[in-house]
Amino acid sequence: MGFDEGELKAVIWKDGQVYILDQSLLPGQKQYLVCQKFWQVAEAIRQMRVRGAPLVGVVAGYGFALGLYNARIQSVRSLEKEAERISTVLQSTRPTAANLFNVVEQMNSLLKREVIKLKRKKKISKEDFQKLREKVLEEAKKIEENDMQKNMTLSAHGAYLLGDEARVLTICNTGSLATAGYGTALGIIRRAHEQGKKIHVYACETRPYLQGSRLTCFELSELGIPYTLIVDSSAGYLLQKGMVDLIITGADRIARNGDTANKIGTYTLASLARLHGVPFYVAAPTTTIDENIKDGGSIPVEERGPEEVKYFAGISVAPASATVLNYVFDVTPARLISGIVTEKGVAKYPYTKTLSRWIKELKKERKS
Amino acid sequence: MGFDEGELKAVIWKDGQVYILDQSLLPGQKQYLVCQKFWQVAEAIRQMRVRGAPLVGVVAGYGFALGLYNARIQSVRSLEKEAERISTVLQSTRPTAANLFNVVEQMNSLLKREVIKLKRKKKISKEDFQKLREKVLEEAKKIEENDMQKNMTLSAHGAYLLGDEARVLTICNTGSLATAGYGTALGIIRRAHEQGKKIHVYACETRPYLQGSRLTCFELSELGIPYTLIVDSSAGYLLQKGMVDLIITGADRIARNGDTANKIGTYTLASLARLHGVPFYVAAPTTTIDENIKDGGSIPVEERGPEEVKYFAGISVAPASATVLNYVFDVTPARLISGIVTEKGVAKYPYTKTLSRWIKELKKERKS
Repeated sequence: MGFDEGELKAVIWKDGQVYILDQSLLPGQKQYLVCQKFWQVAEAIRQMRVRGAPLVGVVAGYGFALGLYNARIQSVRSLEKEAERISTVLQSTRPTAANLFNVVEQMNSLLKREVIKLKRKKKISKEDFQKLREKVLEEAKKIEENDMQKNMTLSAHGAYLLGDEARVLTICNTGSLATAGYGTALGIIRRAHEQGKKIHVYACETRPYLQGSRLTCFELSELGIPYTLIVDSSAGYLLQKGMVDLIITGADRIARNGDTANKIGTYTLASLARLHGVPFYVAAPTTTIDENIKDGGSIPVEERGPEEVKYFAGISVAPASATVLNYVFDVTPARLISGIVTEKGVAKYPYTKTLSRWIKELKKERKS
Repeated sequence: MGFDEGELKAVIWKDGQVYILDQSLLPGQKQYLVCQKFWQVAEAIRQMRVRGAPLVGVVAGYGFALGLYNARIQSVRSLEKEAERISTVLQSTRPTAANLFNVVEQMNSLLKREVIKLKRKKKISKEDFQKLREKVLEEAKKIEENDMQKNMTLSAHGAYLLGDEARVLTICNTGSLATAGYGTALGIIRRAHEQGKKIHVYACETRPYLQGSRLTCFELSELGIPYTLIVDSSAGYLLQKGMVDLIITGADRIARNGDTANKIGTYTLASLARLHGVPFYVAAPTTTIDENIKDGGSIPVEERGPEEVKYFAGISVAPASATVLNYVFDVTPARLISGIVTEKGVAKYPYTKTLSRWIKELKKERKS
């Protein structure tokens, strides 16, 4: 591989190739997929070899850059056609996570601005297209760095929500394996732990893909943060017994009003939290907010294939004929969310005004 | 084997041996454990080769009979010692299911009555002890037949609760593989289906042991009842979307006030049902009621080993060092239960009076 074995980066750009850590093999095997074509990046996203809304955004950015890196571009027309083809393929991989769509949009905005500049020139040379490719790659790197930075900042904001001996319940994986680094919900936990607080994490295993047991427990082990693995359905009982002080989850898409799509089971956790008077927080960078979506009713919720539930490591655990409904996300209404933690601060219900302001700020930042 | 391949009986007494269908291998393999010693029966219960509260009661009855069948009994004293030893071992297998304890108590009551009769005789012969062994075996068979009968009756009562096109959500397995036959919650569904109602079942896969996907889906397939397999954590989302008309579960132990211990996740389902205005029913024979337990706070909730959550078919799905909290049951407060369906009818909240009356009736029946 040639990478430092100690460092487990989820995605790496190197010499015109995108290396993607195959998360489907964790924690047992640490293996990278080497993508030389942008559609291989798209396939890795579609097959969930790489997952986590912010990370999928970052990977899509590199996928976009890789697509242009390999494309034969001889005119603005061919550039635009190529960009459209890449966008379509990347956007078709997974329907729910907002970051993916936001990144593709961001890349296309950049291209549009650059094309305007190009068109002002008398003659467009090969070097111009090469520079453009480099600009796109720079943008992808910037997206990665920005995500990392946003996570660090949101984690600092969120750490204040955790008491000195907070017992935090979480679902899915929202750590460095779900983002460009540090994490969102898990980043907050990590920050509080680094502040010297005695945090204890209850990690829901997160069926069917087991991001909780496979990835979150792995990250918590590496970070030395005490945790207990539980099956998803036991969260209610732990709350009933008063064993949980607060719940924090990530987000795959946040509507303008704060309704939040996240890993299947999140809505159940939010409902149980309300019932037991326990705070329920969502943590995500503002890139997870979708300005085009008014409320949760319009968020497309991905259904995946039955095999994820019917088979485990190739072993059948249900009749071959079984029909499966495999929603991998659900939508939590804003009113059940105690706060949305972003790099810009902690929003409180009702969310519409704050989120709208943040969207505007984010747009300005992107253009600058 | 010598048994009819078409009939999949969960337990069989034959020629002084107890055959137990190894449910840990279903639906892939249909294999019986042959128990020649009562402690092998106890081991099968402890290891969850056989499970389901009513069925565990039935199997414990045969285990008790098998223990006496093999014991060298030469005096009332040795009979009593042997019965105590068998009782202790059987009762130590699993702490939550009431039926197990009720059956052991029932067997000991029978012995006590028989011992009083024996003591009236001048001389106790080997034949007397042999007759007693046969009486105990008869009692075990009666327990099995009674359970089957109770399930048929409670299913008839419960079927009225299901509308013509009811969409029923359930957890764990409560069918013929969890009972002497026909089932409790699944028996109700089966009865309604047999009445020609167009029932659709949402079967929670039921982590960690997957009784839902492995056993319930298997039974529903065999019975030709339409169903959809879901991960446990998606129940909330289905309720939010209005896809479920009612929830029915079984019970492992019911306190005098109606608080009910059942498979982990049941409390979450009951909470979600209340939140969404959907009825939540518990179905169990009256043998699942524990007259010694006032309320749910006193029900011992079994915790099983971490390996059930950390490994799947020998494959590790979490760090080797991971700490696991594996509660396999939880307790649902009576106020969240819309009705308790037994062979004596459907009790409504508050339950204490009705359940107390049923306990008294059950005691009378046992003595007669």
